[in-house]
Amino acid sequence: MTALKHKQPDGSMTAQSPLDRMATMLGAEMTATNALILDRMQSHIPLVSQLAAYLIAAGGKRIRPLLTLAACNACDPSANARGLAAAVEFIHTATLLHDDVVDESAQRRGQASANIIFGNKASVLVGDFLFARAFELMVESNDIRILDILARASRVISEGEVLQMSLTGNIDITLDQYAAIIEAKTAALFAAACHAGALAAKADDATAEGWRLYGHHLGMAFQIVDDLIDYAPDGIAMGKDAGDDFREGKMTLPVILALQKADDTQRTFWARTMQRHDQTPADLITAREIIASHGTIAQGRATAQNHIEAARAAIAALPVTPTAKVLDELLDFVVARDH
Amino acid sequence: MTALKHKQPDGSMTAQSPLDRMATMLGAEMTATNALILDRMQSHIPLVSQLAAYLIAAGGKRIRPLLTLAACNACDPSANARGLAAAVEFIHTATLLHDDVVDESAQRRGQASANIIFGNKASVLVGDFLFARAFELMVESNDIRILDILARASRVISEGEVLQMSLTGNIDITLDQYAAIIEAKTAALFAAACHAGALAAKADDATAEGWRLYGHHLGMAFQIVDDLIDYAPDGIAMGKDAGDDFREGKMTLPVILALQKADDTQRTFWARTMQRHDQTPADLITAREIIASHGTIAQGRATAQNHIEAARAAIAALPVTPTAKVLDELLDFVVARDH
Repeated sequence: MTALKHKQPDGSMTAQSPLDRMATMLGAEMTATNALILDRMQSHIPLVSQLAAYLIAAGGKRIRPLLTLAACNACDPSANARGLAAAVEFIHTATLLHDDVVDESAQRRGQASANIIFGNKASVLVGDFLFARAFELMVESNDIRILDILARASRVISEGEVLQMSLTGNIDITLDQYAAIIEAKTAALFAAACHAGALAAKADDATAEGWRLYGHHLGMAFQIVDDLIDYAPDGIAMGKDAGDDFREGKMTLPVILALQKADDTQRTFWARTMQRHDQTPADLITAREIIASHGTIAQGRATAQNHIEAARAAIAALPVTPTAKVLDELLDFVVARDH
Repeated sequence: MTALKHKQPDGSMTAQSPLDRMATMLGAEMTATNALILDRMQSHIPLVSQLAAYLIAAGGKRIRPLLTLAACNACDPSANARGLAAAVEFIHTATLLHDDVVDESAQRRGQASANIIFGNKASVLVGDFLFARAFELMVESNDIRILDILARASRVISEGEVLQMSLTGNIDITLDQYAAIIEAKTAALFAAACHAGALAAKADDATAEGWRLYGHHLGMAFQIVDDLIDYAPDGIAMGKDAGDDFREGKMTLPVILALQKADDTQRTFWARTMQRHDQTPADLITAREIIASHGTIAQGRATAQNHIEAARAAIAALPVTPTAKVLDELLDFVVARDH
């Protein structure tokens, strides 16, 4: 797991982010989940295992399976959500594989993406394999309600990806349409990950709904911050190529907010670079400057902060267990992160 | 549904194939299943519904959902397997969408394939949508055992596709490897379709296993005949472009059998066209001539016939209901079909 530095409100760095602490607290469960992920990524077809091993080596934060384990642990420390956590990670990984094919990405998690190394064909098919494996793992949970939640989330993700594709380069996109995209492509799985974890611990409906809402708002904030980072001046952008969204013509929050304040020259710039997709490398610098000039990043972080407050409110009435406490601290971390 | 002409052993044509008769016998169930398929292909994302509507309009034989309905009906005419039949068709359609992207196909079911009309990106994502929709439908069946069977089949299909891709152009492929490919990419879903249908009718284990085996062997024979038709002199090849397998370098049964009998000149021909993928349009005619000269098509049909006998044996001890009788007749039809 990649260690993320944690910037405190005063700008200092702590050794361990809430994500790291959560991984430490749930160490045994996370180790078992990682072993399960490794085991179920195997296939008697060598190319499947090779591509899967490549993805595993690339790491990633495993934030979604951690959320499943943590929500489960917050409700009942003796319950087991390992299989569901692995399933959630598989759904996410399958989505990433297909995304990289669709976006023609060259990098993922700081290394060449699987479609570059193994080709688009293998990426599409191994994505299908991982998606099916996720369902096999979910079936083992033997809980129809959880299966329903995760099947639905998988469908919503694909709808979100199609909606995002449909609106690529469309400079008339509304904030509501943007919210619908990120709710579907990101928040739905965060919500389902937490919901499934709570249900695996046999939480009552109100508690499970609290964790579902927590996951939803955390996911919204997470994606908003991701989208802001892509235009940050020093954007390391989570191991993706910084500026990917711009180059792909994805209409994300900073661009939409900048468009709202754009003068004619700027609107012409966005129409050329995003809508007609006529870009030079220098245009990314201009895009960042326009976005910075409007205070768009701060405005975007405020939107993310609203979701953080809603996530906090969703679990405010639930028992304050040690895991619940770290999940609460995770909220501030997600908005504060800059890479 | 496309009406298939049915060639009798004496060469005459009957008005109705066993597939048509099966569709007629199960008319009400099939109408309801088709309505369900139409309904669940809808999405609030317009592009998803548009692509789905395009696939629906293209038709297809719907042989897999028919098998689910028929196996169910053969075990208990009062049982309902509509949701599972729709799920099976969605899994199949998702596979076709991704296949066409992977194979860079231009035609499917006699019209331009979805990847040509809507692009690869939309085909990948709507494939994911249909796959997830299949799982949502399966969850509604509320039967973990059936979910397990269909999730497993979905995973096996993706492994079969990867195996096929790995062995593309490999002229040293064995008959066992070919059998492993078609078992995974085709027979697994035929088997699961029948198995799920029987289990939806609460069949006992032996009966359900009989229908599973029937589906497996029918699927093997179906794919073998499909692969033979691709090299038939007048191959209409089920609405695909005839000669697609050759152009894609897919190592199918007729080529493998022809390779076993190839002299040096012919081996050089296969190495150039399949392994080095250096082809001219005239090479397809040469390929067909080589295959015809070795009696390969008859040899391949004999292999298919073996599976037909095994399928017949698998259900020989089961009650002879009207539906079971047509399913038995379907076996000969599958081997006799020439398009």
